[in-house]
Amino acid sequence: MVDILHRIGVTGSSPSAVYETLTTIDGLAKWWTEDTVGDDSVGGVIRFRFGEAGGFDMKVIENQPDELVRWEVVEGPEEWIGTQVRFELKQEDGFAIVLFSHEGWKEPVEFMNHCSTKWAVFLMSLKKLLETGEGDPAPNDVKISNWH
Amino acid sequence: MVDILHRIGVTGSSPSAVYETLTTIDGLAKWWTEDTVGDDSVGGVIRFRFGEAGGFDMKVIENQPDELVRWEVVEGPEEWIGTQVRFELKQEDGFAIVLFSHEGWKEPVEFMNHCSTKWAVFLMSLKKLLETGEGDPAPNDVKISNWH
Repeated sequence: MVDILHRIGVTGSSPSAVYETLTTIDGLAKWWTEDTVGDDSVGGVIRFRFGEAGGFDMKVIENQPDELVRWEVVEGPEEWIGTQVRFELKQEDGFAIVLFSHEGWKEPVEFMNHCSTKWAVFLMSLKKLLETGEGDPAPNDVKISNWH
Repeated sequence: MVDILHRIGVTGSSPSAVYETLTTIDGLAKWWTEDTVGDDSVGGVIRFRFGEAGGFDMKVIENQPDELVRWEVVEGPEEWIGTQVRFELKQEDGFAIVLFSHEGWKEPVEFMNHCSTKWAVFLMSLKKLLETGEGDPAPNDVKISNWH
């Protein structure tokens, strides 16, 4: 089992503000993909779509206000099914810190390399959203390679 | 043992051009840190510094032209000592693809989360350098958190 790990700090923000963007359809659509629909409550399934590239369905496993958000991938690329996404939130030095992990990959395939870099870019979009009011969600996300 | 993995594709570039930026002091100084000095030949040690934050000394373990670059960390933060950095290069769909790994971390500490995101940002700097002629090396690198 191998994991993707990231850490960002949102300047002048709070865990509460980050939590809002991670647990509402409207918030998620502003930094990950504009095509986000579904049920954002615990036990619900959120559907993230990226045009022709397809997308992911995430079941909301746990929401602890201002502290923790956990999803399980229930539909998407084969490598993603059953993996879990976790956001841990805390305040530090005037920054809202996000500790991110995408856990439970069976093997470190090349697609995992891609997803790791792409997660970093989307987390920077989340940071930008909270710092400036505007993120870079798909389809206007920062492209990193031939795999978009 | 846990690894940091990334993948970027440089538009309209070649493995040869990427290899040049990874194996010369001048190339490295244009995307990672301006304060890069040392011996860039195999067996040599390259010293990367980031002002007050310190830096890393990398021993060049292997250089296979246009294909592979491998370093071992011989000085730096305790968690980095003995870890290895690897860049695999290939051409795909008109992109120069860089498969990156920073291997051999003993434990997935919070600092590893930080380094993973920061590596992504620096690889995007490498991509930008080759696509536009200008990267974002330290001290003008993209800041991601209170840990810079």
